[in-house]
Amino acid sequence: MNFIAEIDVMPLKELLDPQGKAVAAGLKNLKLDAITDVRVGKHITLKLEAADKATATAQAELACQKLLTNRVIEYFTFEVKEA
Amino acid sequence: MNFIAEIDVMPLKELLDPQGKAVAAGLKNLKLDAITDVRVGKHITLKLEAADKATATAQAELACQKLLTNRVIEYFTFEVKEA
Repeated sequence: MNFIAEIDVMPLKELLDPQGKAVAAGLKNLKLDAITDVRVGKHITLKLEAADKATATAQAELACQKLLTNRVIEYFTFEVKEA
Repeated sequence: MNFIAEIDVMPLKELLDPQGKAVAAGLKNLKLDAITDVRVGKHITLKLEAADKATATAQAELACQKLLTNRVIEYFTFEVKEA
């Protein structure tokens, strides 16, 4: 069966996010004043072939822990759904 | 009222995604063989202060079109919810 994992990797809330601050300043220059805070991270889409959803979820979590996320400065959230 | 916009900016499906290919190769080296395809984009979280959800949605969409997305090579999807 085919699954898709949608992963978000974001800078930890305790840390300053310079890229987010730069984007916030850019949006202010464009007069988009409603926007008060910006944080920028990565979005990763994995396609998986697995016997069931539990296996796919385990593989996606392992991928996040081993390669996709630097746990010192980032955290991840993800969702697995059938393709 | 406070809103949060969760934005995904991804490379267009027609385009090669070299970063995704590199990650896919890395995952293969880690024996995560269930993963068949990877695409890497940006995830952006905006905090907004707006009178209602329609205004917040309009501001988020404008931000995507004017600054956050290069429409030649990327597309965006987003969701606005109350904070």
